[in-house]
Amino acid sequence: MTYQDRASRTNAPSICAEDRIRELGIRLPTPPTPFGSYVEAVQTGSLLYLSGMLPVVDHQPAYVGTLGLELDTNSGQDAARIAALGALAAARNYLGTLDRIKRVVRLSVFMVASGNAVDQPAVANGASDLLRDVFGEENMAVRSVIGVASLPLGVPIELEIIFELNE
Amino acid sequence: MTYQDRASRTNAPSICAEDRIRELGIRLPTPPTPFGSYVEAVQTGSLLYLSGMLPVVDHQPAYVGTLGLELDTNSGQDAARIAALGALAAARNYLGTLDRIKRVVRLSVFMVASGNAVDQPAVANGASDLLRDVFGEENMAVRSVIGVASLPLGVPIELEIIFELNE
Amino acid sequence: MTYQDRASRTNAPSICAEDRIRELGIRLPTPPTPFGSYVEAVQTGSLLYLSGMLPVVDHQPAYVGTLGLELDTNSGQDAARIAALGALAAARNYLGTLDRIKRVVRLSVFMVASGNAVDQPAVANGASDLLRDVFGEENMAVRSVIGVASLPLGVPIELEIIFELNE
Repeated sequence: MTYQDRASRTNAPSICAEDRIRELGIRLPTPPTPFGSYVEAVQTGSLLYLSGMLPVVDHQPAYVGTLGLELDTNSGQDAARIAALGALAAARNYLGTLDRIKRVVRLSVFMVASGNAVDQPAVANGASDLLRDVFGEENMAVRSVIGVASLPLGVPIELEIIFELNE
Repeated sequence: MTYQDRASRTNAPSICAEDRIRELGIRLPTPPTPFGSYVEAVQTGSLLYLSGMLPVVDHQPAYVGTLGLELDTNSGQDAARIAALGALAAARNYLGTLDRIKRVVRLSVFMVASGNAVDQPAVANGASDLLRDVFGEENMAVRSVIGVASLPLGVPIELEIIFELNE
Repeated sequence: MTYQDRASRTNAPSICAEDRIRELGIRLPTPPTPFGSYVEAVQTGSLLYLSGMLPVVDHQPAYVGTLGLELDTNSGQDAARIAALGALAAARNYLGTLDRIKRVVRLSVFMVASGNAVDQPAVANGASDLLRDVFGEENMAVRSVIGVASLPLGVPIELEIIFELNE
């Protein structure tokens, strides 16, 4: 029985992201910490804004370089997934539990890519597939994908994420 | 009688974007469809977020290239206008009617431009002039214009748009 | 007695940004004016969105060039600070007083930088340190830092800012 099946059978009023994370065997990393005078999460009304999430593990970049040059599409997808895991860790750290999240509102994916040598939407799916798996197909976000010149620490990916919270 | 005149005479509580589109002779394209695991529109509270809108017609890029190299300012303006028409089509597809839109809150214009050879604000006006014509001068958005390295499918323009809806 | 001390002693329900600006000896510039068909600020619900803020004084760029080439980290920090001062001027112009601002929600810093020659978080602190000083440590925003290809007028910095307002 898939997640969708179960959701429609039980008519569940909200997703259970923590259950999903356990079922998927996902282990969240240590929450990211700031590189400057800012915070990792801010709630305003029912929205939770996160800082730009980088593919960073223990404050060190997991990937450095340009997609299409030093890094291929697979590495880009993995970098996007690592940044999205960091986003989940930051959100859980702020909220106490991911079950307070109703849906992902917006995901903006900034990537350092060489010209158009890279399938940018495929790389971005590394992040949005993870978020879809955790929060469900019916809670998918809008998305922007943007190729930029450089990112902090030399990483190839940065994610801007806005979550909507349950009241 | 201009739109402004009429609005002030009738003291209309809200704009009628669908009427305006008819008066302007605008035909909206087929709504865009996703290139990955995301959706084209998400409503949260009274805000409607759209995915990054590209100058795409029938899932194919209408323009490919760099502003200031292969593409001039006029082509950039037209690309921005096509992307904005896609945004209107996506919003109507989600909401049923554009008359539910109260105003444009924010328009971010990402463009692939060669150095500073291009008048970036003039290119961005291709999108914001259309939105002003449809929603009225008194409902103009805030705007950001940003020159980036590359965009999906090789297009020169991407728009991030947030609408505010009538309650 | 520091700001933090005083805030905790008096148990102040909200910050007094105008007092802080006077104490810090900050003079706000003339509010920025649009370069196209958009406005500088839009309120929706309790959020105030600003247009992309450039390091501009009297409609002229205060800095032109690329960080890491013509401009060093100090110049980048100053450009970021000038853009943030413009944001405060735009917000005050729209709201009447900065005391209506509860906190900064999000700060996105776009910068034109040569590869990774520049300490991007340090440059961005030019803006976020100012906002922290004015609105207090407990009201710091989330932040994104993104290296882009070019910005309007050839400036090295652009800020996207969202404020939360007191009800």
